[in-house]
Amino acid sequence: MKMLINVPETVVADALRGFAAAHPDLVVDVEQQVIVRRGAPYEGKVGLVSGGGSGHEPLHGGFVGRGMLDAACPGAIFTSPVPDQMTRAAAAVDSGAGVLFIVKNYTGDVLNFDMAAELAEEEGVRIEKVLVNDDVAVIDSTYTAGRRGTGATLFVEKIAGAAAEEGAPLDRVTAIARRVVESSRSFGVALTAVSTPEKGGPTFDLPEGELELGVGIHGEPGRERRAMMTSGEIADASVEAVVDDLRPDAPLLVLVNGMGGTPLLELYGFTAEVHRALAERHLPVARTLVGNYVTSLDMAGSSVSICQVDEELLRLWDAPVSTPGLRWGC
Amino acid sequence: MKMLINVPETVVADALRGFAAAHPDLVVDVEQQVIVRRGAPYEGKVGLVSGGGSGHEPLHGGFVGRGMLDAACPGAIFTSPVPDQMTRAAAAVDSGAGVLFIVKNYTGDVLNFDMAAELAEEEGVRIEKVLVNDDVAVIDSTYTAGRRGTGATLFVEKIAGAAAEEGAPLDRVTAIARRVVESSRSFGVALTAVSTPEKGGPTFDLPEGELELGVGIHGEPGRERRAMMTSGEIADASVEAVVDDLRPDAPLLVLVNGMGGTPLLELYGFTAEVHRALAERHLPVARTLVGNYVTSLDMAGSSVSICQVDEELLRLWDAPVSTPGLRWGC
Repeated sequence: MKMLINVPETVVADALRGFAAAHPDLVVDVEQQVIVRRGAPYEGKVGLVSGGGSGHEPLHGGFVGRGMLDAACPGAIFTSPVPDQMTRAAAAVDSGAGVLFIVKNYTGDVLNFDMAAELAEEEGVRIEKVLVNDDVAVIDSTYTAGRRGTGATLFVEKIAGAAAEEGAPLDRVTAIARRVVESSRSFGVALTAVSTPEKGGPTFDLPEGELELGVGIHGEPGRERRAMMTSGEIADASVEAVVDDLRPDAPLLVLVNGMGGTPLLELYGFTAEVHRALAERHLPVARTLVGNYVTSLDMAGSSVSICQVDEELLRLWDAPVSTPGLRWGC
Repeated sequence: MKMLINVPETVVADALRGFAAAHPDLVVDVEQQVIVRRGAPYEGKVGLVSGGGSGHEPLHGGFVGRGMLDAACPGAIFTSPVPDQMTRAAAAVDSGAGVLFIVKNYTGDVLNFDMAAELAEEEGVRIEKVLVNDDVAVIDSTYTAGRRGTGATLFVEKIAGAAAEEGAPLDRVTAIARRVVESSRSFGVALTAVSTPEKGGPTFDLPEGELELGVGIHGEPGRERRAMMTSGEIADASVEAVVDDLRPDAPLLVLVNGMGGTPLLELYGFTAEVHRALAERHLPVARTLVGNYVTSLDMAGSSVSICQVDEELLRLWDAPVSTPGLRWGC
């Protein structure tokens, strides 16, 4: 498997050097692997910190900036960052108003953010945590007890980020983040396996002519292997999975997310089918975001995330955001 | 080759339906295949129209909006749109101030935009054209006499779009667009072949262990096949190609562009090497944009585009832009 890299060992550090070069409005500590919004801490503002294994870009580093995260900690590929990164990030963004850790539900991330929270609190930083576990595909998985955290992380980071930007206090930002988690569900599909630099090729087998329904963002197994399906059939399966679980009764934010290797042209065609499937269920769509946001390196495939929103969550979703990976209204 | 599609015949129409669903601020004529900025024509504003074969998304439809294009005409995959689309687009965006056609240098596109210009002028629309031919890899190619138009199209559409948004008249917008073309160069590399829905698999052979230096955005042959290179070596080859041709003596805009199938993590690592290669030549970088902007469906690989800028071009680059594919400052 050919990759645009130097050697597998330096992939994350190389990317951070390039990220720093491209985004001078962010402070990138390449050695400690912490990305911080320039100017942080902002007086009186709650700090938002997330992080996780690399390989899901633009998540999380690409979501650092005005109206979203204050800091992100990238780990090695598909590997949790360590507590030291998280406590550094917390210290860098705490203005005294406290810090919210946004944690995707993978065992390593949960343990490390827990430990970091204890350490940060010993240093006098008030910490709250929110666990993102939106993936309805399976209960328990390769790296997870309970449900995996996937595409809805973007909803949580955007909406809680907007609340923090407005000056909401820590308990309120935390409550909003939890409300987004409770209101969100995701379901992913893989058409090809993911290849990691370390392995130098695919990390699992997915034969020509088959797809993986309910795949995780590290290529973890989903609900079932099926013979290849059309875009419309995949949309039906994805929408059914998230809607049956959430049973929404309010307008939806919809994220049609690419896993990395699927062309944007196909993602837009898939979006049409997702809208059709939602319309058939008489579910109104408030906003639709299409693109590669929570990826799995080069994996071909897609995920559908929905979040049902009231007026407040929709207003916070629409609020200005300015990050490398998500930007509008400012 | 598995794709997230229904049937090859409806890929572009399906994508346009999804594009319309996701972007209610644009007017999408799915049947005629024309995307127009809502509210166009804007009084006194020069209209900017581009278009080309589909498969390069977000180019061009994703660049319709405030501060960039007024309309785009997507053709079939890797196939020029027809003159009728272009004249419809011109009529839809002409406020009386005239229309600039931005044309990538491929034989079909050039012929069709020429014919459309004649037809539009017969209908009383003043038309100017600018030809983008930035790709230094080869003279003449599969679909091209002269140099191919590739990544620098983004520079032209952004900068000329900002000038038009400010109210510059047609001759001035045209002159600025031509200045951007003269100031820009690109060079692309493929690690894998591109697969089209029509073909159902790769359109050319690129063996494991080899890459194509100087590839076109339809997978056209480049300068040479080489044994696989590191990110640093590819950056050296790409930067050497564009710099030797342009011989810049002013700060650069740099676009590190993904061809579609290369993960963002790798593109950022490549960005670090591109910056290193430019720094070794003592070439200052004013701005860097990293991402999948001028793509070739699922092809893995990258291109480097540079544009040397004076104060005016840099100011226009930094001006607010709000489109599905490129957004900042507003």
